[in-house]
Formats: sequence, structure tokens, C-alpha cells
Amino acid sequence: MAVYTEVTDEALTAFVALFDIGSVVAFRGIAEGVENSNYALKTTQADFILTLYEKRVEVADLPYFLGLMEHLAAQGLPCALPVRARDGANLNPLAGRIAAITTFLPGVWPRRVTIEHCEPLGAALARFHVAGAGFAPTRKNALGPQGWPPLLEKCLGRADTVLAGLGAELSVALRHILAEWPNDLPAGHIHADLFPDNVFFLDGKISGLIDFYFAATDFYAYDVAICLNAWCFERDFSFNVTKSRALLRGYAAHRALTAAERSALPILAQGSAMRFLLTRLYDWLHAAEGALVTPKDPLDYYRRLRFHRDVTSEAAYGL
Amino acid sequence: MAVYTEVTDEALTAFVALFDIGSVVAFRGIAEGVENSNYALKTTQADFILTLYEKRVEVADLPYFLGLMEHLAAQGLPCALPVRARDGANLNPLAGRIAAITTFLPGVWPRRVTIEHCEPLGAALARFHVAGAGFAPTRKNALGPQGWPPLLEKCLGRADTVLAGLGAELSVALRHILAEWPNDLPAGHIHADLFPDNVFFLDGKISGLIDFYFAATDFYAYDVAICLNAWCFERDFSFNVTKSRALLRGYAAHRALTAAERSALPILAQGSAMRFLLTRLYDWLHAAEGALVTPKDPLDYYRRLRFHRDVTSEAAYGL
Repeated sequence: MAVYTEVTDEALTAFVALFDIGSVVAFRGIAEGVENSNYALKTTQADFILTLYEKRVEVADLPYFLGLMEHLAAQGLPCALPVRARDGANLNPLAGRIAAITTFLPGVWPRRVTIEHCEPLGAALARFHVAGAGFAPTRKNALGPQGWPPLLEKCLGRADTVLAGLGAELSVALRHILAEWPNDLPAGHIHADLFPDNVFFLDGKISGLIDFYFAATDFYAYDVAICLNAWCFERDFSFNVTKSRALLRGYAAHRALTAAERSALPILAQGSAMRFLLTRLYDWLHAAEGALVTPKDPLDYYRRLRFHRDVTSEAAYGL
Repeated sequence: MAVYTEVTDEALTAFVALFDIGSVVAFRGIAEGVENSNYALKTTQADFILTLYEKRVEVADLPYFLGLMEHLAAQGLPCALPVRARDGANLNPLAGRIAAITTFLPGVWPRRVTIEHCEPLGAALARFHVAGAGFAPTRKNALGPQGWPPLLEKCLGRADTVLAGLGAELSVALRHILAEWPNDLPAGHIHADLFPDNVFFLDGKISGLIDFYFAATDFYAYDVAICLNAWCFERDFSFNVTKSRALLRGYAAHRALTAAERSALPILAQGSAMRFLLTRLYDWLHAAEGALVTPKDPLDYYRRLRFHRDVTSEAAYGL
């Protein structure tokens, strides 16, 4: 639910006039995305999304994110295309922020994931990885394994207020993950946050991939593990291996996982559960009074982590 | 910022199929409106707004609100038209709520009110009052003068935590307002919440009036007083009589205020400041932990109330 920055009519009109997209017809805040302010912008020409980048996004990273979107869109992936102003810039100042206009993508994100969503999702993820190969810039994954110990450190003091013994258990689990973490898997551009609310479907097909603001250069299979966590657990936190199998089948149709990637899947799944557990725990413990966004329950990912810790081989994921 | 109820794809598809509006192309939560869940719905035919009515709205009042919108749209006012399903119903169940689809209105609400907005606003308000005359149903204003003492009662215990002496001062002010409240002014349907974020402008003209969910049958001049409070104060809470004069000039072009309405304006302005002060104070003191909506500062209306208490005649408003 996110509109943090208000834009005056005058500023909006002046901003839109930088582009060759017609004039403003409507402008409404969108209650989706938690990091930035997003507006649905309708002009005399078409529908667009206007995003103002808020404090949690590093301005220096924006050219990477927008460049990757542009690259992938050019490769035929259904991701939003950043619109360039008449002078060629796709990032411009607005209301004290840096802002971008991107094309509008049709579709609806699945509020309830079914098996039918999982194969197309896996296929889109693999196409993302393959198509990204030609994009030269890189970005270190700030929320990769090296980012986890400092995050846990900041939570330890109060972790047990969420669940008795949580701090000690996470310390042990994290030590194990870091000790077992692979260091030589195939790597490239990953989305790193391809949750259901970032994927639009229309008539059973994927019509949009959005929210590239955690994208980074990291192991492809780690991105797969993130999607297993995000798409294959039921509401009761049971793991649906039929969904997982469909996801991996869709992936394999466009990119084959290597033997090393397959056998690393259990530890990568633990790591990705840890990553979302830690950021949610941090947000939970540090939620500002009067925050616009309700923090997500960190224990959802604690339950996923426990599942992956009991996994003995990649067969658990349907491989 | 409001999406309180999530709608599954299946439920959405079934709901939209009740109408003759094409099939779903996109569906995005809107971060505007604080009482209900609002979605921008794009179909193969057009853009619409889908609203799910949340707990603070009385379901029994919905036919009045939607009927009034339909009546006013038929009279040529730029308000959203509730779309009727094939069976004629404009209210239908969805995701455990009652929901409606209304037409999409172009335009942008003014983040910063200028003098240029005020005359069209006054004109639209008068046209609303005049056009509403033919709509027979009525609705008692739950947030009219009779609603204020119980609201203040619920705040008195902690009012002084907001400002020392606030409880006693509001008790005195409310007693005065109720003693002086007129009882025989021209009445009819009023919007009762025509704030800048409920009014869209396009090319300097009003293109949309929205959010009819406080509409009621009450004094027309009370609605004028609400608009004076909502549109004519600057950010430093100084009253801009040039804006007020423009607003009243716009109003007078479509409906003449009677002598009784004009001389009642100072007490009506105090009353409407009191109404928003009390609901904001109540929300401020009773804000739920983790609420999606940040409560608005009640003291904004305390400052307005103090201005109106110092007013000695309607001349202060430019009359």
C-alpha cells in the first residue's frame, strides 16, 4: 500500500511534459508495492505507471534496475518498459525524489496460487535468467548471504519477543546455511523477489513481471529457491510438491539446472527462507508507529525454513 | 490508502461476469479513500472502479448513496455512475462484502488548492444541491449536530493528552454551537465530505465528484461551510478570503444563499470544524495498532474552529 510522496498538479504536468506521451488524463495512487510510491497515470495516449523512488532504494542502483527492465523487454519478456523522456533520460526528478514512467502491463496477480500458475511461472523465471545474460552491468545482492549476519545481529536483542528461543535457533540455522553455501553455481541477473504479487496473469498466461528493485547478480538457482518458497507453500505452510514439480518443469523447458544447482537446492531454499525471515523480522521489530505498511509476519518464513531443514535431498522438491 | 479486502481471481471473474462490461484486463488496488477497498478495474470495454464496502459503511445506506449518484449523473453532474448488473442490481456480494462497480472518472485531485479551483468547486456544490432536489429518498446525517456530543463524550477522557485543556475548551465550544444551531434552513441532499481529494479537475474544469459515502439530508449551507473549511485555509491555517469569495461566487451562480443561510454561515462553519475535529480526535485516540491508515491530526480542525469562533459576521467569508 504505498503512496509516500504526494505530487502537485503543477509538478506532475511539468514532469509528464518531459515525455512524448500526451497529457495527463488521470493520476491515482496504487495500493501495491511497499518500497516506493506508485501511481497509475493515464494520458491522452495510454496507461502508464509512475514510480517515485523512496528512501529504501539506492538512487545509484536505479540505472541498473531500469537498464535490466529495458533489456529484458527488448528480449520479449513481459516486463514494464521504462519510458525515456525526449532527452533520452528514463530517470528524472519529481517532488524531491527520482521518478520513472513505465508502460502499463495488463493482468491480475494471483491472490490464491494454483498449480496452473506454477509451470508458466517457472518458465518465465528461466526466460528471465536466459535473456538477462546479454546485459553487462552487475549489482551485488545486498540481501545475499553476506547481508544476513548483520540483519540477524540487529534482531537478536528482541527476537525472542516474537517466539521464545527464536534468536538462538536462527543463529544456529544461519551458521549452518553459511557453512554449506555453494560458491560456484551458474550466476547472472536474478529477480530476487518474484512473489505472486509481482506476476500478472491474463487468460492463464503471464502478462507482466514487475518490481525489479531487488534484482541483482547472484546464483540463478537461488532465484529458483526464492520462487519455491513464494509459490509452493499452502496457507497451512505445508509444501505442495505438485506445484514445485510444475514450477521446475516450466523452468527446465527454458534452462536446464546443472547437477550442482540441483543438489544445492535444499540449502538455497533454506537461505532464501532465512533472507525473507530476517527482513520481515527486522521490519516487525522496527515497525514505525503510524507506518503505512503493516509488517508481514516473520514466522511465515520460520515455518518454511523448518521445512527445508528437514529436507534430505532435492527429491523433496520433485526433482 | 485502502485495500482491506483481497479478491481472488475466481471471485473477480465471476463478479465481473454479472455485468455486461467485458472481461477483466487489469485489477489494481487504489491507495485512495479511507473507508472502503477500492480497485481500478480495466476490462476489454473500459476503465471502472470496483468498491468493496467495509465495516464503517452501513449496508442499509448503500442504496441511498448509489441512488443519489445515479440521480446526479443523470442530471449531468460529473459523478461516477454505478453500473448495473444484467439483472439490474448495482450492489452485489463479493469476497464477503457488498461491492459496486462505478464508471471511471478522468482528472486529478488538487494536492495544492489554488484560487482557480474554488469558483468551479462552489459551482459544482450548488449544482449538486440543485440537482439533488428531485431525488426522493432521505438519509439522516449521522455526523450532524446530534452526533457530536456522544463523539466528544468518548474523547473527553484522553483529549487533554493531545493538547492541555482541549477537553474543556471543546465542551464549551460545542455547547455554544448547539445553542446557536439554526433549525430552519433550506435542506436537501448534501455531499458532506467534499474535500479536495474527492474532486477531480481536468484542464481547469471539474471532471469528477467522488466518495458519496457521507452524503445525507441536511442544510445546504452546512455543506458550504464544510467546503469553506476544506478549501479555503492555507497550510499555516490562515483563512484565505479570496478563495472563500471565489467559492461563494461559484455557488451563487447556481443557487442563491438566503439571508438566513448567510447569517448562519459563521455558526455552520464552527459546527463543520467541530465535526471533523471530533471524528479525527476520535480516530487519533482510538487508532488501532498496525492500522493501514495514518490518523489525521485533529488539531488542524481545532485551529479552524478557533478562526470561526472569532468571526463576528458572514463578511469574514467575503459575503
